[in-house]
This record gives sequence, structure tokens and C-alpha cells, in this order.
Amino acid sequence: MPPMATVSHALRFAQRTARMRASTIREMLKVTQQPNVISFGGGLPAPELFPTDAIADATRAVMNEYGPLALQYSVTEGTPEMRRWVAQRLGHRFDMDLSPSNVMILNGSQQGLDLIAKIFIDPGDQIVLESPSYLGAIQAFDAYQARYLTVETDDEGMIPESLEHVLEHADPFPKFVYLGPTFQNPTGRTLSRERRERIVAICEKFELPILEDDPYGELRFEGDDLPSLLSLARKATVIYLGTGSKIVAPGMRVAWVVTKSADVLEKIALAKQAADLQANSLTQYVFHRYATSDQFDEHVRTIVRTYRERRDVMLDALAEHMPASTRFNRPSGGMFLWVSLPGIDTEELLPVCAEQRVFFVPGVFFYPNDDVHDGMRLNFSNAGNEKIRLGIARLAEAVRGFRK
Amino acid sequence: MPPMATVSHALRFAQRTARMRASTIREMLKVTQQPNVISFGGGLPAPELFPTDAIADATRAVMNEYGPLALQYSVTEGTPEMRRWVAQRLGHRFDMDLSPSNVMILNGSQQGLDLIAKIFIDPGDQIVLESPSYLGAIQAFDAYQARYLTVETDDEGMIPESLEHVLEHADPFPKFVYLGPTFQNPTGRTLSRERRERIVAICEKFELPILEDDPYGELRFEGDDLPSLLSLARKATVIYLGTGSKIVAPGMRVAWVVTKSADVLEKIALAKQAADLQANSLTQYVFHRYATSDQFDEHVRTIVRTYRERRDVMLDALAEHMPASTRFNRPSGGMFLWVSLPGIDTEELLPVCAEQRVFFVPGVFFYPNDDVHDGMRLNFSNAGNEKIRLGIARLAEAVRGFRK
Repeated sequence: MPPMATVSHALRFAQRTARMRASTIREMLKVTQQPNVISFGGGLPAPELFPTDAIADATRAVMNEYGPLALQYSVTEGTPEMRRWVAQRLGHRFDMDLSPSNVMILNGSQQGLDLIAKIFIDPGDQIVLESPSYLGAIQAFDAYQARYLTVETDDEGMIPESLEHVLEHADPFPKFVYLGPTFQNPTGRTLSRERRERIVAICEKFELPILEDDPYGELRFEGDDLPSLLSLARKATVIYLGTGSKIVAPGMRVAWVVTKSADVLEKIALAKQAADLQANSLTQYVFHRYATSDQFDEHVRTIVRTYRERRDVMLDALAEHMPASTRFNRPSGGMFLWVSLPGIDTEELLPVCAEQRVFFVPGVFFYPNDDVHDGMRLNFSNAGNEKIRLGIARLAEAVRGFRK
Repeated sequence: MPPMATVSHALRFAQRTARMRASTIREMLKVTQQPNVISFGGGLPAPELFPTDAIADATRAVMNEYGPLALQYSVTEGTPEMRRWVAQRLGHRFDMDLSPSNVMILNGSQQGLDLIAKIFIDPGDQIVLESPSYLGAIQAFDAYQARYLTVETDDEGMIPESLEHVLEHADPFPKFVYLGPTFQNPTGRTLSRERRERIVAICEKFELPILEDDPYGELRFEGDDLPSLLSLARKATVIYLGTGSKIVAPGMRVAWVVTKSADVLEKIALAKQAADLQANSLTQYVFHRYATSDQFDEHVRTIVRTYRERRDVMLDALAEHMPASTRFNRPSGGMFLWVSLPGIDTEELLPVCAEQRVFFVPGVFFYPNDDVHDGMRLNFSNAGNEKIRLGIARLAEAVRGFRK
């Protein structure tokens, strides 16, 4: 009650996906409920860096300055203050002209994935994804019964020739390509500058809209900023997703979608109005207050410095403890790195890791179509240096135990 | 770009609905952009009653007590504190056993309408609605291409015989009945106690799930609380929606869905995870802190006292100014009342009201299937007493001008 027959096709599809992973989810729960477990599994920011005092101060300041306006209903597109801040910050970062009318505020960037799926996808439609790709996006698209065309990747991200090949043979032609060009979730990889230009050119040639997901772009540890696909496009429709979750706090659910296509933005607004009316008025005002304060830039620098150190600690520990056959990358920003264990099914490794009280996400979940079983995603932002060292030592112990 | 052909069927359907109303929306914008306009159109709470200082204090207290936890990702179902508070408050109000596991926290109750539509509705499925019914619900269901079966109503709400008749002849059988039994939006009507029991019995006989929308139930001006359909059901699946928007503040986006069906709640959680991961952590904690403070009960009493007075002022002004043929009801709570102007198309009245700088929502929008043109919804919560008197005088002036 209600029986399955009363449930819509969309959710049945999502449930099928979910059931496939039930045994692994049980393992995950088993692990995370143990005391002293060290998790590299989630995508959580470092909580000790959250600006708790500053957020309380900002709330008081917002109440003094805006009063009831910050607690009342507001427009679906977001507060004028937040839209202007996003347009200015991204315009400056990517050296491009953006106006507040190119920006809409979302209840977290997951909502962007959902609403964009809602306006583009009919059951059976195809979407182009990197292989591997972000699990949350796959879940959002699954709910609309999308099918996937996957493009090969290497250490420089999506391979343009593979994208071109996929598009030449696609039938039906896909609705859009989804990719995370900068410090991608799950791999931490970054699309090179040359490839950015080539991928935008290919999408312009094929008239394929681009969904660019950029939650981690401000967390660069070294090297120069690269242009966003949004800023490189001349004719292509690029829909860009950004978020405050990684530079302020995810619990405030302030994120944004940016596009030069007024048509797409209007459709997203229409879909959002039916879905939840508007983003949170209060946390939009509080976020804006904090993000325009003197403390903000230094706060972001502290996050970058801390995560860079944690990445280095994790890389050193991997080199020290893991078997020689282990491969891993060195992301120049973000929150994740990718480990390959040739010959090991990392899903089968989980129960052994449960015994060692360490946790990761098996790579197979990030492949929408392919069975690639030797990868794992490791998060380096959440745990402190000591926990990272201990956790990687446990992981290496689990791998040795598993090989026997 | 993208051309219409790339947009999903669901959104095209929603757009069709939206376009039908484009001319009226233009009139609405014309009116609300004028200076000194008095609007009875929106559904806004009285902003001067928002507890701005208390919310700033509560945020500081939450940061002191919970710290980073209130800014981190949290679970899709909502914080344990909020789920417990909702279970206790509703359990007490309706004299029933509820546990936190019956509760999920939403990003506004519009999200409940969207997610419930998502899990129940396939294109072409039928939903049973009151006639008239809440516009936001119709918009949410439209996005999933629902069709509607409408049930007749009178001053005591939905007529049980009409519901029974509709269900006996329904083909295909509907997925659920949606209704607002208490101070309904748009009419302000309340379903009588006897009818509540009969409607639950009919739904149990036909095994039809009930979606009970109760945003205004705490705003009772006189008379005794009536049992919720949730508390009356023995076998029926009842999905109950409540919100903090009318008792604290809508900008905080804290609302809840409550059901004894673990199956339904699990499906809503699955759909919510793909849609936006979770409700706002920060405003859940802040809401909880305020709602458990000494000030809260008195705050709700102040809202009730203020809205009761405004309703009375509006009723007196209607009696004084409007033509003798005007009919209107006297809601015993909530934020809206319903006016009928026999022989007048209230949509055509809007341009005349624009000249008079007064605004309302034409009743026709609330009828999903029927062409009933002589109604209007008036909100009495947002404007103060003087503005209500002046606005109703203007409205009466517009009606007299229109009749000529």
C-alpha cells in the first residue's frame, strides 16, 4: 500500500538502479556505523573549517539590514543580491561578460541536475557522459529514464576523438553532454585547455548542448585557472552549475545555474517553480553577506591550503603503504583522487575494509554502462592528516588481506 | 537554442498550461508594478510578524550548540530533531501515535506535491481534485502530465456523494485524491467532521490513497480543531503535508510530509535524494531551536489574533462596499476567503482593478477542468487593516465601473 503498480515508471526505474546496489549499501552502512571507522567514501568538506561564528554574525547582520524580507517568500530565480554576486564572481574568474539575468539560484547543485534532466529528457533519450562520471548525476538522469552514451577518458579528461566518434554514430542523437571538466568527481582529473577548446568546437559542430558541472573549480592547489566551457563557447548552449557547498557550507544549500540561453533559464525557472517554488531566502541572504565580507577570500585560501596538504599526505601514504601495482593520480585541486588496483574487484574488497574500519566508494558505481571493477574513489578533504595516514595504512592492509 | 524539439514532453505540457494564462499574467505584473497597489493576490504571511530577532538569536544558539553539524550535509530524511518535533507536535494536535520515522523534512511543502506526483504519476494518470483546488498542486501535477477528476464542493468542502460517484465511474482508476480539508486554498473552506469520516471511509472502500494538504491548520480563529484525515484513517494510505511557512517563515523552506506508510516514505526519500539530496541543514536546526523556545506558542497566538482581526476587517469592508449580489464566505481560519460575483468574469475585471490599483487572483485558475469565471480568491493575511479597508473599497469601485 500503495502496491508497486501504483508507482510511476520513473521511480520504478530509479528503484531498479537502487536495488542493484543494495548489498553494497548494506556493507557501507555496516562500515560507517562502526566506531573509529575512517571514511574516504563521502564527499564531505572539512567541518572544522566551516565559518560557524561568521554565519551567526552574518545572520544577525542580515536581520538588521533586510529584516522580514529575508524570511518572506522570494522569487524563483533567486535574490537579486545572490544573482549579482554569482555573475560578478564568475565573470571575473572566467574573464567574461555575465549579467544577473544569466544566473538562477538553486537548492544545491543536485537540483540543477534534476531540473535540467526534467526539461530535456523524455524516457529513452540519450545523454553523453564521461566514463567514469558523477554518481549523483547518473541518479538524477536515471529518474527520467535516460540512456547513456559514454566517452573514453584519460588523465586529461574526456578524449575529444572519442566524443566525436560517439556523436557521429549516435542514434537517437543525444540531448546533451554532461561533464565535470575541473577536478572531476570521481577521478579528480582536469580537462586540459586544448581539449576544452576542441570539445566546445565539436559540440558546436554537432549542435549539442553542454552541461558543465563545476563544484570544485575554486579549490585549485597549483597551476593556473583554465577557462570554463561556458566562457569558451561562442554558439554552443552551455549550462554551467556551480555551488557554495565547497567554499562556504553544503548545509546552506546555495548553488547556481548559469547560462547565456534565456530560453533554457526560463524553462528551468518554470520547472523549479512547480518543484519547490524557490531557493531558501534566508540562507541566500546569509551566504551573500558572508561571501561579500572581508573574511571570505582568506577563508577560501584556508580551505585550498588545507586540502592541498591532505592530498599530499594521502599521496605519500599511498606511495608508502599500497602494493607496487597500485596506480593513482595526483589531482591539482578538488576533493577526490582515483586509485586503480589491477586485478582486484573493489566492491568485493569492501567487506575486508569493513574489518579494517576504513571505507571508500567502489569505482564501478561511477560507470553508467561499463563493468570496470578495479577503481576506487578516495576523498581527501574530510579527514585530518593523521586519520588519512592511518586510513591508507588500513586500506593497504585490507588489500594485502584480500590478495591472499 | 535548444529548440522546442529538444525539450521533454513533461515541460511542454507545463508550458502549455502557462501560456494559457500569459495575458492574465501580464495584467498581474502591470498591477503589482504600480506604486501604492494593494494586493490581495498572493499568499504571503504578514512580514511584520516574522520573528527576525529570534531567528538571529536561534542561529547563534545553534552555532554554539551544534557548530559544524548545522552546516554540513545531513540525511535526506531530515534532522532527527526536526523529525521528532513534527511527530510530537502533530501527534499531540491530532491525538495519535506518530514516530519520527513517519516524518520526512522537505524544502517547502510544494516539494511534497512534486515528489508525490513523481512517485505516483505516469503521463495520462488521473488524480481526484476538489473543484476549485490549489493552483500550486495543479502546477506540480501538470508537470507529470496528470489528468483530473473533479469532485463537487460546497461550504463544508468536498461532497462525499460526489466523490463516491466519481470513483464509481473512474476509468482509469485515479492514483490518489488531493485535498485541503482545513481552511483550504483557495476558498478558506473547512471540511466538516462528519464529511472527514465519510471521505476516509470512501477512500478505504475504494483503496484510494489520500494526499492531505494542511498548511493552515494551526491558524484557527474560532471553533474546535478537527481531526486530520491522517488520524482518522485505519486502512487508507494518507500522505499528510504540513509546513513551517505560515507559523514561522516561508523563506526558511522547512516543511514536512507525514505518513504511516513506510513504503511511500521510502519512495519519497529516494525521489528527494535524486532531486536535491536533502532539506537545508541550517534552517532545519534554526527552525527547531525557535519552535522549541518559550516564545513560539505565543508567536503562533499572535499570528492567529492578527489574521482573525484582518479577516473581520475584510468581511466588514466587503459587506459595506460590495454590490448586494456579491457572495462571500467567512473562513474560521487560514489566509484566504472566496468571493463570487454572479454574472462577472473576474479575469476580465483585472484590467479595471489595475486602474484602481488593487489585485486579486481570478477564481478560474483554481478550476482544473471547469470554466467557472465568477470567483475570486482574496488574501487577508498580508495587508494591514487600513490597507484592507482601502483595497476592498477600490475593488468595489472596480466592480461598479465594470458593470457599466
